[in-house]
Amino acid sequence: MSDSLKMRLFDELEAFPLIDPHTHINPHAAASKTLADILGYHYYTELAHSAGLSREVIEEPEISPKEKVSRLVPWLETIQNTAQYAWLLDICRDFFGFQGEHLTTHNWEALYDLAEAKMSAPDWEQQVLRQSRLDQVYLTNDFDDRLEGFDTSFYVPCLRTDDLVFHLAKPEVRQRLQVATNRELGTVEDLRASIRQLFEHFSARGARACAISLPPDFSPAEVPEGDVSAMWLRLVHGAAVSAEETVLLSRYVFWELARNCEEFQLPFDLMIGVNRRVYLAGVFQGQDLYDRRTSLIQYQALFNAFPRVKFPISVLASNSNQELVSYAWIFPNVIANGHWWYSNTPPYIEHDCRSRLTAIPKTKYVGYYSDMYKLEFALPKFRMYRRILAGVLAEEFVLGRKWSETAALELGHLILRGNVETIFGNA
Amino acid sequence: MSDSLKMRLFDELEAFPLIDPHTHINPHAAASKTLADILGYHYYTELAHSAGLSREVIEEPEISPKEKVSRLVPWLETIQNTAQYAWLLDICRDFFGFQGEHLTTHNWEALYDLAEAKMSAPDWEQQVLRQSRLDQVYLTNDFDDRLEGFDTSFYVPCLRTDDLVFHLAKPEVRQRLQVATNRELGTVEDLRASIRQLFEHFSARGARACAISLPPDFSPAEVPEGDVSAMWLRLVHGAAVSAEETVLLSRYVFWELARNCEEFQLPFDLMIGVNRRVYLAGVFQGQDLYDRRTSLIQYQALFNAFPRVKFPISVLASNSNQELVSYAWIFPNVIANGHWWYSNTPPYIEHDCRSRLTAIPKTKYVGYYSDMYKLEFALPKFRMYRRILAGVLAEEFVLGRKWSETAALELGHLILRGNVETIFGNA
Amino acid sequence: MSDSLKMRLFDELEAFPLIDPHTHINPHAAASKTLADILGYHYYTELAHSAGLSREVIEEPEISPKEKVSRLVPWLETIQNTAQYAWLLDICRDFFGFQGEHLTTHNWEALYDLAEAKMSAPDWEQQVLRQSRLDQVYLTNDFDDRLEGFDTSFYVPCLRTDDLVFHLAKPEVRQRLQVATNRELGTVEDLRASIRQLFEHFSARGARACAISLPPDFSPAEVPEGDVSAMWLRLVHGAAVSAEETVLLSRYVFWELARNCEEFQLPFDLMIGVNRRVYLAGVFQGQDLYDRRTSLIQYQALFNAFPRVKFPISVLASNSNQELVSYAWIFPNVIANGHWWYSNTPPYIEHDCRSRLTAIPKTKYVGYYSDMYKLEFALPKFRMYRRILAGVLAEEFVLGRKWSETAALELGHLILRGNVETIFGNA
Repeated sequence: MSDSLKMRLFDELEAFPLIDPHTHINPHAAASKTLADILGYHYYTELAHSAGLSREVIEEPEISPKEKVSRLVPWLETIQNTAQYAWLLDICRDFFGFQGEHLTTHNWEALYDLAEAKMSAPDWEQQVLRQSRLDQVYLTNDFDDRLEGFDTSFYVPCLRTDDLVFHLAKPEVRQRLQVATNRELGTVEDLRASIRQLFEHFSARGARACAISLPPDFSPAEVPEGDVSAMWLRLVHGAAVSAEETVLLSRYVFWELARNCEEFQLPFDLMIGVNRRVYLAGVFQGQDLYDRRTSLIQYQALFNAFPRVKFPISVLASNSNQELVSYAWIFPNVIANGHWWYSNTPPYIEHDCRSRLTAIPKTKYVGYYSDMYKLEFALPKFRMYRRILAGVLAEEFVLGRKWSETAALELGHLILRGNVETIFGNA
Repeated sequence: MSDSLKMRLFDELEAFPLIDPHTHINPHAAASKTLADILGYHYYTELAHSAGLSREVIEEPEISPKEKVSRLVPWLETIQNTAQYAWLLDICRDFFGFQGEHLTTHNWEALYDLAEAKMSAPDWEQQVLRQSRLDQVYLTNDFDDRLEGFDTSFYVPCLRTDDLVFHLAKPEVRQRLQVATNRELGTVEDLRASIRQLFEHFSARGARACAISLPPDFSPAEVPEGDVSAMWLRLVHGAAVSAEETVLLSRYVFWELARNCEEFQLPFDLMIGVNRRVYLAGVFQGQDLYDRRTSLIQYQALFNAFPRVKFPISVLASNSNQELVSYAWIFPNVIANGHWWYSNTPPYIEHDCRSRLTAIPKTKYVGYYSDMYKLEFALPKFRMYRRILAGVLAEEFVLGRKWSETAALELGHLILRGNVETIFGNA
Repeated sequence: MSDSLKMRLFDELEAFPLIDPHTHINPHAAASKTLADILGYHYYTELAHSAGLSREVIEEPEISPKEKVSRLVPWLETIQNTAQYAWLLDICRDFFGFQGEHLTTHNWEALYDLAEAKMSAPDWEQQVLRQSRLDQVYLTNDFDDRLEGFDTSFYVPCLRTDDLVFHLAKPEVRQRLQVATNRELGTVEDLRASIRQLFEHFSARGARACAISLPPDFSPAEVPEGDVSAMWLRLVHGAAVSAEETVLLSRYVFWELARNCEEFQLPFDLMIGVNRRVYLAGVFQGQDLYDRRTSLIQYQALFNAFPRVKFPISVLASNSNQELVSYAWIFPNVIANGHWWYSNTPPYIEHDCRSRLTAIPKTKYVGYYSDMYKLEFALPKFRMYRRILAGVLAEEFVLGRKWSETAALELGHLILRGNVETIFGNA
């Protein structure tokens, strides 16, 4: 009974059209052109490399897409067990009609050619969106993105701010900021004004969030402008600044971002817990890991200081999920957001989803975002999440509390889509 | 088969009369008088506030109980998914015969009136106790509680010591201690004597535990009396003491408590991991959170120094549960105690219960305490626990190891009640 | 359906012959002689002590094996619920034909005598190996073990290096090293040469791994030889060295071990997270616990520096498992290894197994090792693991992804045995 119930709920959840509230889609090249765009996703290059494929082989410059795929396919056998590989099979089956049990050295080439033919259709992007039931896709935009040449009501801009908070000591980042805002950065007041100007630009173009990923040891605090003005002057004049001063600057800029989120009524997406460049010889985008010893207590001052800013929070380690549940239960401005990266496999999602759904207001959990770089990944990733959500709805609510299936599905709809609309606003 | 087995075990577990070994019941007003006492429980005010209800609306002075309920009810819709809300429905159904699917703006008033009528019966307290099958209820008493005017063999006193350990630097706390013990506190020897006097008083009135909640960074250590005598003199003479000295005093007092627990043969309930006043604008009792980065290794010296003191331990974060399992497996004086606060929802309870029941001696796990402020909450909270316990007994023991149902229920009885009697003593 | 599927997969997994890649077997006395060898396993003495049996009673010198068992048996009643006790029942039933429901004060003596009779058969060791389907058993050898007098192709040597890394400041350890290598240790160059000599000796005798257990706060780093040469001179001349210098020496030796693992192509087994002698009055081998606040980020430099060394990693706390999954997913040289000690009970194993099997290449997870001291424990411990593995294979792969049972069993075989052969090499 439980199995057919889950299946029924899953089928209904699959039919809901989606909004994907966090992706890395390039709106000028949203869909894939060949299988290399699919298999080049860092989840596959990382795992193939982890299993033994050398980085040089995958990342050799100038190899053709087909050659790249041919080098990756032999390694797929070692990752057939992974959830990540299951996404790949779903894509091949749903979009290209692949019938095989596995993608192998024997059958990949025919699939490659077939996929390329399908993907070369002028309306491929629209086909994918339609088949995936995607109503809206949120982007991740560099602060100096002009946000031009695409439909911002469909591909919704978000201001990504890692560079501003963590790399402003680099001349090239300051240079980009100057160009983007067409303004000198001689003083910290200039810096403050230029940050505000970015918010004006993004808001005018329909941005619906400010976002940032944060290392495990980051701890936001208010820094008086006077405490960074001298170091800023030295910085822009090319003098050396200390590591402590750089931390102070990071905190200053971060706090300014929060202030602007308040003024411009933008949610501030915090993605907490990543250490960059841990594995130095890793493949492209496959070098980041973490120190699980981080706590939301580090954000206490921030949550208290900005009660009117919504903070949708993603945590990198499932270890952090109970804190997220507890903080979302107590702080009105803390929202549990999706299942991120190393926590985006079924055992972690299920545990985290179940504990959120049974402890925090149903309006404060944004179920899922795909984090995808290419449109084809929304379908399998959301499907994975919907399957888990269907299971939790069946067990906890329909069987556990005798809810009607309709009521359970309404909850599912809220978690999958309703909360996205409410929290990020209907663009 | 598994489902009907679980149901059978659950029904049997439900029939066991209980001892509730940790509550915040006021023995002079143990039962609720109106639905406001139920809905005013911080679990509901916190969640409603988290979902958007402003603190000022709930905490407006002088509003009537009925007005208070009317302001909370509209927000219940947002928390229907939570386990906490499920307790509320259980109370309304079991005690007041509520038949609705949910408590809503449409049906609350009739329920309010009906509940008020039932609760005004002179024997309401006895009705609740009987219906909940409560044989004994442990209290949490301030150190200066006279412990008079109630039946201490039913409402069992426990000496709560947070103020002594963490707030003795405040003149008003020292004043309360002076009054309670009728003794000057001029020297640290006086302090030591007055602490002992509290234990004499509580023991004479049948107290069965000393209890304290502890912040994540607390680390007990023996402090020679000489190390605090000078600071104590300055403190009582109104001079300033440093933060380091206050920590030293906390450790000194904590260690004295442990010494007295040994002398008076009282278990020392440690509730580890809470940071107070994290969310400063939170509702009453809804401001506390935690830093999950805490370890039982911090209690190494304590557990080694007091082998004859039993330490029933509650951990705030499920992350800490495996350490509790391991420490209870190794240290004879460490006991796993209940499922506390932010870990008191089904997914955490189940995980923690299952891992305890399969790894530590069955005599060293006190299954559950309600932590309730009003008597009506024992029934739904223990029911939640019993349902989970029934599931674990069914899966791990009856199905997994071919135990008879009788044997599984004996284990259940031990966890639910037998260990309370053995560990806290039969008052 | 799911239950009979699991049973079918379990039966097939049970039929696979094993290699046990980590044990503490003494190859000169591999099997038990009496029930005291079984019940004397620290898992039982710890739990009985934890439940109330005093250490002095178990560890009284000169008591006979039978007397020892007679003192432990009455305490078994308190641990009947544990997974550890379930191993004991399996041993008694499978090896000695025990028919009782439990091992009690009433039936133990007959079992003791029966077991003793069986164990006194001259081929008992071979009987156990055959019944347990053990094809090969890896050892844990002190660095000064001569490795003589046993068949090293069956009982495979491993170089255990805790003493070298953490106890070289003790004269007796340096003395043992001098004797083992027949070489003076006057300079740090001598030390380096003597370490290399140990690897030559172990390699020549067919060793397949270097292994070490590490405290939670250890963080490997390269230490230039010049930084320890002066302290080494003082150390060997009996002068005092500081705690900081000792840490430096630990790091120096650890790094040398890694270098030699590279040269001699040996995997370096890291068992991360144990604090020794936490409970000072604990029974033999029952004094160790941990601080769960440890992170694999501490090993970042090591993993980057030795890409050609395989690091099979065991973590003591299940909290650390997600980091292990993530690091094994990114670093080609990081391998998830077994389920260690306090994480070796079913709820932790299942969670850790499921999350590994669904996220990292199937070639990078060594399913299980017994950690046993006596041969009889491989059977029940591997059975516990196989039961869990069968469940995960059934749920995630056969039911969840429609794999054939054959394909699921192939994956099971790889995890149970194939990866041991590939990673540690076919001795």
